Amino acid sequence: MFIGFSEAELFLRNCEDAVIITHRNPDGDCIGAGFGLKDILAQLGIRSRVICHDGFPARYSFLTSEGAGEEFEPKTIIAVDIADENLMGDYKDIYGDKVQLCIDHHISNKNYAEKTLLRSDATAACEIIYDLAQYMGVKITRHCAMCLYTGISTDSGCFKYDCTTPRAHEIAAEMMRSYDINFARINRYMFDVKSLGRLKLEAMVNELMEYCLGGRLAIAAVTQDMMKDMGVSMEELEGFAPLTIQLENTEVGILMREREDGVFKCSFRSANDVNVSAICQSIGGGGHAKAAGCTIDGPLEEAKKHLIAAVERALS
Amino acid sequence: MFIGFSEAELFLRNCEDAVIITHRNPDGDCIGAGFGLKDILAQLGIRSRVICHDGFPARYSFLTSEGAGEEFEPKTIIAVDIADENLMGDYKDIYGDKVQLCIDHHISNKNYAEKTLLRSDATAACEIIYDLAQYMGVKITRHCAMCLYTGISTDSGCFKYDCTTPRAHEIAAEMMRSYDINFARINRYMFDVKSLGRLKLEAMVNELMEYCLGGRLAIAAVTQDMMKDMGVSMEELEGFAPLTIQLENTEVGILMREREDGVFKCSFRSANDVNVSAICQSIGGGGHAKAAGCTIDGPLEEAKKHLIAAVERALS
Ligand SMILES: [Mn+2]
Ligand SMILES: [Mn+2]
Repeated sequence: MFIGFSEAELFLRNCEDAVIITHRNPDGDCIGAGFGLKDILAQLGIRSRVICHDGFPARYSFLTSEGAGEEFEPKTIIAVDIADENLMGDYKDIYGDKVQLCIDHHISNKNYAEKTLLRSDATAACEIIYDLAQYMGVKITRHCAMCLYTGISTDSGCFKYDCTTPRAHEIAAEMMRSYDINFARINRYMFDVKSLGRLKLEAMVNELMEYCLGGRLAIAAVTQDMMKDMGVSMEELEGFAPLTIQLENTEVGILMREREDGVFKCSFRSANDVNVSAICQSIGGGGHAKAAGCTIDGPLEEAKKHLIAAVERALS
Repeated sequence: MFIGFSEAELFLRNCEDAVIITHRNPDGDCIGAGFGLKDILAQLGIRSRVICHDGFPARYSFLTSEGAGEEFEPKTIIAVDIADENLMGDYKDIYGDKVQLCIDHHISNKNYAEKTLLRSDATAACEIIYDLAQYMGVKITRHCAMCLYTGISTDSGCFKYDCTTPRAHEIAAEMMRSYDINFARINRYMFDVKSLGRLKLEAMVNELMEYCLGGRLAIAAVTQDMMKDMGVSMEELEGFAPLTIQLENTEVGILMREREDGVFKCSFRSANDVNVSAICQSIGGGGHAKAAGCTIDGPLEEAKKHLIAAVERALS
């Protein structure tokens, strides 16, 4: 059932011993939303614990270091930034059908929870939680402000992408004025700082990039052999697809990664108006207009030809 | 003489045939401020022309394509985003001592104009111009909003850096609500899109990076020979210094570029709290706490040793 702020407030003010679930491969938004909500519940005298199938990466320790909360038998199950209970990982079996409140901004939300506070026009779950705290009249802490800022900033690409709302900017302004958060340092760690490994992988992907269709398509393929040579896994190459559309005239970018079974996992990106979801659907995949994917069998050169032909059809 | 909004309004409402000067190596802020102010003057029925020693780069054509203004004998001289008349290039000789109004946000402003509207706490000159238009009650156009957004976004690193003010966020929110500007496309072209040449130079600089002092210092040196090999000039390597501090543990980064006379121009960056201005001052240079510079004679290896020693002294 979809609910509004007043019902969400009623729920939160009357809950006890809450577990707050965040999604697998946690990002700034679910971590910020989880730890931010934990702070808000603490203001209300309610104890809670934030959990994640994958734990919390070290780069978010500036938000998580105060601890995710003590152990207790949960009486309340809350999910934040989780559109689908399958994104809970192992926690799906324990809590998947017991979520009482879900706070989310994904239009694809499966409505799996008892009550869902969904605002699909929000930049981030953190934007909803900030507005909810304001609505409830809870004065948030500086730590909570840092959590919520981080979620808004990371999900919007530092206010860069289409999904950025005017409200996201207004909240950032309010947080800077009222809480003196060290936003520049947060943004440096979220956006500018890289590991040496990441730097080397970026160099590799850039090196591999081929430009086709008069430069309108850029395609890079990373094979299992290359991954073994570099000592990296498929997962470590997650998030490199945007590199394929950094060139001025590129309209579509594809990053191909070979799985152990020789099948290529392909991530498509669109720089402007080309709908890559439609292209992927035409070859058995799917996704969003600007970010989509498919799988395709090897060998590499044939697979590439197939992909290039599909893009060519879409561009003509 | 430093003036406030009321006097700036009086000046603008009563001026005629204005030339608006922007600084050399024009950036998003001076171009946005120049073309934004031109729009505002047009609303008041005043014609103006935006000029720049270097012309306006093609990547800003989404702001400049309507034209910089017709030719006329100027009766009013305005400078935007120019702290020092030396930044006018050839226009210094013609207009340097004749500027009647300067609108600027640089604390280093030399107060060279007859009247200067200086707000050194503003993110960008465009932030001042937006607030001035509001103060004057001038309804800006969508094109003007795009100009001013571009200046605020580029000077703040897309709201990422320390210099971002709460007001910058508020203005962005107002522009998004009222003018439906295509901010995501602006940001893509300002921040994400690169030329193939730039991509290759980045790869080169990353390749050249050496890590010293236990990784706390990163240093990259580009020699004249390398520039000749790559077919690039010193100027094209402008703006690569931030690459030196992209690694997690780096505290100080130095990009060295060899001039034709064999002297190395060195750009320092600080990732966190180290004051690189102080380091540069200790070896005859200067600048800001987080971005500073100096020159040093070759040969390269000796110059490098000298720089490393200066950084080591500061870190200990
Ligand atoms: Mn998320
Ligand atoms: Mn400037």
